[in-house]
Amino acid sequence: MSIQPVPAFEPPYVMTVFTSVRTPEDEGYGEVSARMTALVKDVPGYLGHENAHTPGGLSITVAYFRDEESVAAWRADLEHQAAQARGRKEWYESYTLHVGTVHRSHGFVRER
Amino acid sequence: MSIQPVPAFEPPYVMTVFTSVRTPEDEGYGEVSARMTALVKDVPGYLGHENAHTPGGLSITVAYFRDEESVAAWRADLEHQAAQARGRKEWYESYTLHVGTVHRSHGFVRER
Repeated sequence: MSIQPVPAFEPPYVMTVFTSVRTPEDEGYGEVSARMTALVKDVPGYLGHENAHTPGGLSITVAYFRDEESVAAWRADLEHQAAQARGRKEWYESYTLHVGTVHRSHGFVRER
Repeated sequence: MSIQPVPAFEPPYVMTVFTSVRTPEDEGYGEVSARMTALVKDVPGYLGHENAHTPGGLSITVAYFRDEESVAAWRADLEHQAAQARGRKEWYESYTLHVGTVHRSHGFVRER
């Protein structure tokens, strides 16, 4: 199956946009990243997430949640918090997190 | 200067998340994309935008605006609308647009 954008959900929902630039340090990143991808899917109200990464440049990860309670549950996860702390110590040169409530969305899929 | 994420602004502000997968059609895309990048900067209330693109995969572009009026001005731009129509006709296999109001944000920059 080819890659597809996460679809538009019925507003309102919440999206978290995490934009980051990595350090050269790569040890442990892949495993922890895979673990976080598995873990977030168990958060009640998790809707989906997606990532794009320009080689040598910016990475953008967007996660979608049903409501603020879902995001709060993910923020409160201790294993997630430990991963964030390690990220600041080792893996990230810089990052920005924007959390917002989606009030409009739509999608397009080419007809065959 | 090395690439940096767009910084966190003072909430509330609006972000538009455009996730897309391209068709193989590339003619005109680069020029129109560059033109849109120049044009959006003139929109009153435009704060910044950034893109990441996994080769052969997903592209994510996030644009930041001061308020809904700014986004509405960008949506109403006729050259932008023409570019969107051409995108649906030629360049995009699929895309999703999510527009939301940011209520929380923060950034991290590694200390030297």
